[in-house]
Amino acid sequence: MPTATETTTHHTEISAAQRRVEDDLVDRVVASFDDCDNPRLKFLMQRLTVHLHEFIRDVRLTEEEWNTAIEFLTQVGHITDDKRQEFVLLSDTLGASMQTIAVNNEAYEDATEATVFGPFFVDEAPEVPLGGDIANGATGQPAWIEGTVTDTDGNPVPNARIEVWECDEDGFYDVQYGDDRTAARAHLYTNDQGEYRFWGLTPVPYPIPHDGPVGRMLTAVGRSPVRAAHLHFMVTAENLRTLVTHIFVDGDPQLEIGDSVFGVKDSLIKRFEQQPAGTPTPNERDLGDQTWTKTRFDIVLAPANPVYEEN
Amino acid sequence: MPTATETTTHHTEISAAQRRVEDDLVDRVVASFDDCDNPRLKFLMQRLTVHLHEFIRDVRLTEEEWNTAIEFLTQVGHITDDKRQEFVLLSDTLGASMQTIAVNNEAYEDATEATVFGPFFVDEAPEVPLGGDIANGATGQPAWIEGTVTDTDGNPVPNARIEVWECDEDGFYDVQYGDDRTAARAHLYTNDQGEYRFWGLTPVPYPIPHDGPVGRMLTAVGRSPVRAAHLHFMVTAENLRTLVTHIFVDGDPQLEIGDSVFGVKDSLIKRFEQQPAGTPTPNERDLGDQTWTKTRFDIVLAPANPVYEEN
Repeated sequence: MPTATETTTHHTEISAAQRRVEDDLVDRVVASFDDCDNPRLKFLMQRLTVHLHEFIRDVRLTEEEWNTAIEFLTQVGHITDDKRQEFVLLSDTLGASMQTIAVNNEAYEDATEATVFGPFFVDEAPEVPLGGDIANGATGQPAWIEGTVTDTDGNPVPNARIEVWECDEDGFYDVQYGDDRTAARAHLYTNDQGEYRFWGLTPVPYPIPHDGPVGRMLTAVGRSPVRAAHLHFMVTAENLRTLVTHIFVDGDPQLEIGDSVFGVKDSLIKRFEQQPAGTPTPNERDLGDQTWTKTRFDIVLAPANPVYEEN
Repeated sequence: MPTATETTTHHTEISAAQRRVEDDLVDRVVASFDDCDNPRLKFLMQRLTVHLHEFIRDVRLTEEEWNTAIEFLTQVGHITDDKRQEFVLLSDTLGASMQTIAVNNEAYEDATEATVFGPFFVDEAPEVPLGGDIANGATGQPAWIEGTVTDTDGNPVPNARIEVWECDEDGFYDVQYGDDRTAARAHLYTNDQGEYRFWGLTPVPYPIPHDGPVGRMLTAVGRSPVRAAHLHFMVTAENLRTLVTHIFVDGDPQLEIGDSVFGVKDSLIKRFEQQPAGTPTPNERDLGDQTWTKTRFDIVLAPANPVYEEN
């Protein structure tokens, strides 16, 4: 196996005449887009052509494998409807969604890293005050989350808007229940010191929908459909780059098995410290005989239009 | 623009930290397939991952472009049914079908070149004798086609089975009419001298189905949906490699505009010589006041399992 990022071709066993036939075909397909009057579309289609053909030539794709690929894509198309987006699942499980996120959220100094947005965000989730509870009836172990929002110079960011959302202890988001409930999602704002704090639920792992062709692909290659436990954040503030990210749970066994959509970054794994029942809570919330957890997530936002330096 | 077959990356404007983030993601997705117990599937998925990520990074795909791609694939999936295979059209128009054919039919000495099979072949088309007419009611200008089948040493191949099929003068294959007609398709066999001859129709250009998302893509990039005029051949003979190919018509303006599925190879363009009405026919067929054409296509079959040499 070549290393993952190696892109050299593997045509060493074919004749020069064969190589000419294959090269000539790539050239003709690329040239077919020459008259496209949208320069970006032209560039995208020409580079797609180059990479697609490079894949076919690299693996010496058989006609039977091509047929299997056509049949697989047909199945992905047929299961996709208004509520089920199997092409997004396919992109997610191939890491293509996460790579697109990566390309559009370039690493900047010590700014907090981005990860996938996911399909479960809802506009206009309710506001909670600092220290409020986002659960609104969603079941699960209470978790206290607190931290700060700063810029990359360490200045606090007051009035930053923080959207948070997560699944319940059964692994379902509110919108998956098909009724009108709003639960385990909210927004809140940082105070003058750039601080935030709220009650949520300790995140749990859950599988992406895996009863379709993408699930069958994961089974065929021996992969788990389960996402590592996580809590979603989207943080917006004036003149700073919007951050879409998660925090993950240190010790979650799924971190070792692998997150099915490759959203995990080491810097986003946080310790949710277990608190025995009866441990006093930070804001005197009465949890009765429930255990709870607490964690800290300090968020650093990049400038809105960072200038990149080669280093 | 880089040249078509260049595969170097274009990440020169990103930081080293960003490059590490992107490389690390590719490595993690590749590693996710490590436990696949089918070595070929594992190889295909890992190389697909590498090339797919390379494309996203190369073009710095935006999140909006990613959404457009998901929506496009969804439309391709939804128009596809038992009679309409839009994923095949997509593969065809990106040259991926033709590249797969190329990879599986490697160039061999002077053997006749292969091209796409297409969706219109039918098993068990009727047999015609040497010099017979395949039209069976299909309309169009009669064309006399003759030639030989030999191996790459020049030896005639007797009893080679030749399947031929083509559209009528309106650009439709028999199977597109939705009734039970069989027309403009047949099979025949070479004689002891490896010769064959038959009456068909002078091929005409016709568009691939272009009322769906692939047609809209072709419009957006300024490409024609029309295929260059052609007549399909499939030739099988013992101990020789099966040949699937077409012949094209010298002077067809679509050859300049471009075949929408990239099936054309120069060696397959044949002159169909126009014959004025009343010109005596090769086998005394009475064509009344019809004009007709004649052409020659000498077919050379490769060995069944050619040994390739680097040259």
